[in-house]
Parts: sequence; C-alpha cells; structure tokens
Amino acid sequence: MFQLTALYDHPEDVEAFDMHYDDVHAPLATKLPGLQRFTISRPGPDQEGNKPTYHLIAVLDWADEASFQAATGSPEMEAALADLPNFAGAGVTILTGPGRTLV
Amino acid sequence: MFQLTALYDHPEDVEAFDMHYDDVHAPLATKLPGLQRFTISRPGPDQEGNKPTYHLIAVLDWADEASFQAATGSPEMEAALADLPNFAGAGVTILTGPGRTLV
Repeated sequence: MFQLTALYDHPEDVEAFDMHYDDVHAPLATKLPGLQRFTISRPGPDQEGNKPTYHLIAVLDWADEASFQAATGSPEMEAALADLPNFAGAGVTILTGPGRTLV
Repeated sequence: MFQLTALYDHPEDVEAFDMHYDDVHAPLATKLPGLQRFTISRPGPDQEGNKPTYHLIAVLDWADEASFQAATGSPEMEAALADLPNFAGAGVTILTGPGRTLV
C-alpha cells in the first residue's frame, strides 16, 4: 500500500474552505487513477479544549508505489493540485510514503 | 466514521523507534475495542528531497464517535497511551474528529 496524507492548516474562512473542499476538491481527488481508499476527517479540540494542529486531514491509499506514481503523472492529479490555491492558501502539508493496513 | 490520526515526530533513534512501533505499539493499538481500520505510513522525502514533516503517520477509524469514546475509556487505550513514552519521546500529535470515507 502507498499512502498520501494531506494536512490542511486552519483557513481564514472556514466555511468557504469546507464548502470548496467538499463540493470541488474532494470530487477532483476521488477521480485520481488507481485510488483505492480516500478518507477525510475534521479534527476537534483536544481534551483540554486546544485548537487542533490542522483543520482537515485527507488520507489517500493506492495499492503500491507504482500505482501512486502513475496517478501523479495523470491529468486528474494535475487538476487536483491546480485546485489547491483556490482554497488552501493557509497551507497544506503533503506527505507520501509506503504504508500498511494493520486492521 | 470517527478518526484518530497520530503524527509522530522524527525520533533520535529511528531503528529503535521503528522496532518498538512495529513489535510493541502497533499490536497494542490493534486491540483497541471497536477499531474498524488502522493504517500506518512512513513518509519519504518530498520531490525536492526535503525530510518529511513527520516520521510515521497512524490513522485509526471507528464506526462513530460513541465507539471511539468507548475505546478511549478502555484498558486497551490505557495500555497504548502508557506505551507512548517508551518510544515517542520526540513528540506525537494526536488529532481526533469526525470523518468520512469518500472512496
């Protein structure tokens, strides 16, 4: 398994971010070739009520690195990356690497 | 769906961290009550060769927040949290919140 994790910083306009993510960006990402699984979560405050480190976390799984690399060269990935400036100006950390499904 | 994401900072001793994570911590986490899915990934350098922001990412899914809350009060969660100081001294960011499976 090969995994991409996108950690989105807190946007200035939360409502605009969430609307754009759900209505535009997520549908673009779901079209990525070979994508096997795609989850998002919106972290809440921790037990002490502190604001979480990130606003939204997206986790995308491919079968293996070759499938991921094929997706990175696709028009669908180009479209998804080109959309980032439209809503993620506050910042996004994208991490990619080999993964395992333990449960 | 309710998701817990653990973002582990780069350890001083990578080999010791990885061995402890795979042999001790992951098996503890797989025992968490109600856990529906558990993936880990080890991010690599980005395309410019920069070290990734985190050393290891763990993503754990429960059916809903009630199932997650039940797990947080369990002896299994207590054991998993008690194990963190044994390997994650460099730091770990734990985020929890409602999620969705899009693919």
